[in-house]
Amino acid sequence: MDDVKMIAVRESVFADNDADAEALRTQLRREKTCLINVMGSPGAGKTRLLLALTAGLKETLRIGVMEADIDATVDTEAMLGAGLRAIQIHTGGMCHLDADMTRQGLQTLGTDDLDLVILENVGNLVCPAEFDTGAAVNITVLSVPEGHDKPLKYPLMYEKCALLVVSKADMLPYFDFDCRKLEEYARRRNPHIEILYSSAKTGCGTDAVAEWILRRVREWNREER
Amino acid sequence: MDDVKMIAVRESVFADNDADAEALRTQLRREKTCLINVMGSPGAGKTRLLLALTAGLKETLRIGVMEADIDATVDTEAMLGAGLRAIQIHTGGMCHLDADMTRQGLQTLGTDDLDLVILENVGNLVCPAEFDTGAAVNITVLSVPEGHDKPLKYPLMYEKCALLVVSKADMLPYFDFDCRKLEEYARRRNPHIEILYSSAKTGCGTDAVAEWILRRVREWNREER
Repeated sequence: MDDVKMIAVRESVFADNDADAEALRTQLRREKTCLINVMGSPGAGKTRLLLALTAGLKETLRIGVMEADIDATVDTEAMLGAGLRAIQIHTGGMCHLDADMTRQGLQTLGTDDLDLVILENVGNLVCPAEFDTGAAVNITVLSVPEGHDKPLKYPLMYEKCALLVVSKADMLPYFDFDCRKLEEYARRRNPHIEILYSSAKTGCGTDAVAEWILRRVREWNREER
Repeated sequence: MDDVKMIAVRESVFADNDADAEALRTQLRREKTCLINVMGSPGAGKTRLLLALTAGLKETLRIGVMEADIDATVDTEAMLGAGLRAIQIHTGGMCHLDADMTRQGLQTLGTDDLDLVILENVGNLVCPAEFDTGAAVNITVLSVPEGHDKPLKYPLMYEKCALLVVSKADMLPYFDFDCRKLEEYARRRNPHIEILYSSAKTGCGTDAVAEWILRRVREWNREER
C-alpha cells in the first residue's frame, strides 16, 4: 500500500529493556506525549475498539497510532481511513515490541505535536506482557468469545495492565461468559485493575473507555517533570 | 489439583530444534504413535473442540492429551473429566513448545499404549508456529469471532498447518466473517491447506474433523518405517 508508512523494526541492542523503557518514559513525559500500549489476543477487536475511541478523542487530543503486526497493513489502512496519523510497525516475525522498537516507531511517527500515541501491540497474550514498551499505561482487551478464564491462563498480561476492556460485550447473550468470574480471576492477579465493558459495534461502553484514556492523558501531562 | 499430573518443562538444550523434532518424529513413527499439534489463539475454542472430537475418537483410538499452558490446569481437568489420559505441561511463562519440551511431556504421559497423542499448544498465533514440536501434523483452530483476516496477519501459522478448523461456526450469523476471503487468504499462504468448519457447541462439523484425524492416524501407522 502506497499510503502506509511502514517501519521494519530491528531487534533491540539494549540488554536492559526495563532501563531503556524507563528512559523512553521519562523522555515522553518531558515531551508531554502520553503513550498507551494496547494488548490482547488476535481478533480481540483492538483495532475496531481504537477506531471507536479515537473518533471521539480526536476532537480533544492530537493522536497518533502505531500498528504493530508481523505482516499485513490492514489495521494501519483502517486508521488512515479514519483520518488518523498512523504508521505500521512491521515486526517481521517478532512476537512483541520492546522499548527500543517502540522508540523506532515513535521516531517514524513523529511525536512533537501529539498528546497521545496509541500503540497497538502484536496480538498475543504472552510475549508482549513481558516487555515494557515505555508506555505510560497498558490496556488489555479481552473479547467475550475468548472466555472468562483467560486471566487464569495468561496471568502476566493481567498483572501488567491498568485497564481491562471486555470487548464484543454485545455478544454476552450468545456465550457462556461469566463476568463475575472474570473479575474475580483478574483481581486475583491484579487487585487494582479497572474493568470496563464495551462494544465497538453498538457503541455501548466506548465512551467510558474514551473518558478513562482522556483522564490518563491529562494526569500524564499534569505530572511533575 | 491433586488429580492433574503436571510437568514443568525446561527450555531446550538443543541448538537445532528442527533436527531434534525430526528425531522425535522418527521415534514416534517407529512406536506407531501419531502426535498431532493443535494451535490457535487464546480462546479459539481448542479445548472444547478437542473434547468434542475425542468423545467419538476414543471409541476407536487409544488417546492421550497434553495441555500446554503458562499457568492454570483448567483444560487438563476438563480432559480428565471426560475420561481421557491427560497431563498438564506447565511452560512457566514460555510462549511455545519445542521438540524437547514435547518429548518431556510425552515421557510423562507415557505413549507405549497410545495410537494418538494430541498436544494442545500454548494459545498464541505467533511463537508456536516457529517451533517444530516433532508432531506428525499441525492443526490450527481459528474461531469465527477472531475474524477472517488472521492469515494475513499471522502468515506462518497458516503455512505450518495441514488443517484449518474454523471453530464457533454457529456464530457466523452474528459476525462479519467472510468465509471466501478467509479461504483465499489462507490458500495464498498455503495452497494445500484443508479447511473445515465446525461448532463444538452444536456438534455441526465436528464429525468431519474427527474423520480427518482418524485418516491421518491410519496413514501414519501405515507409513513405511
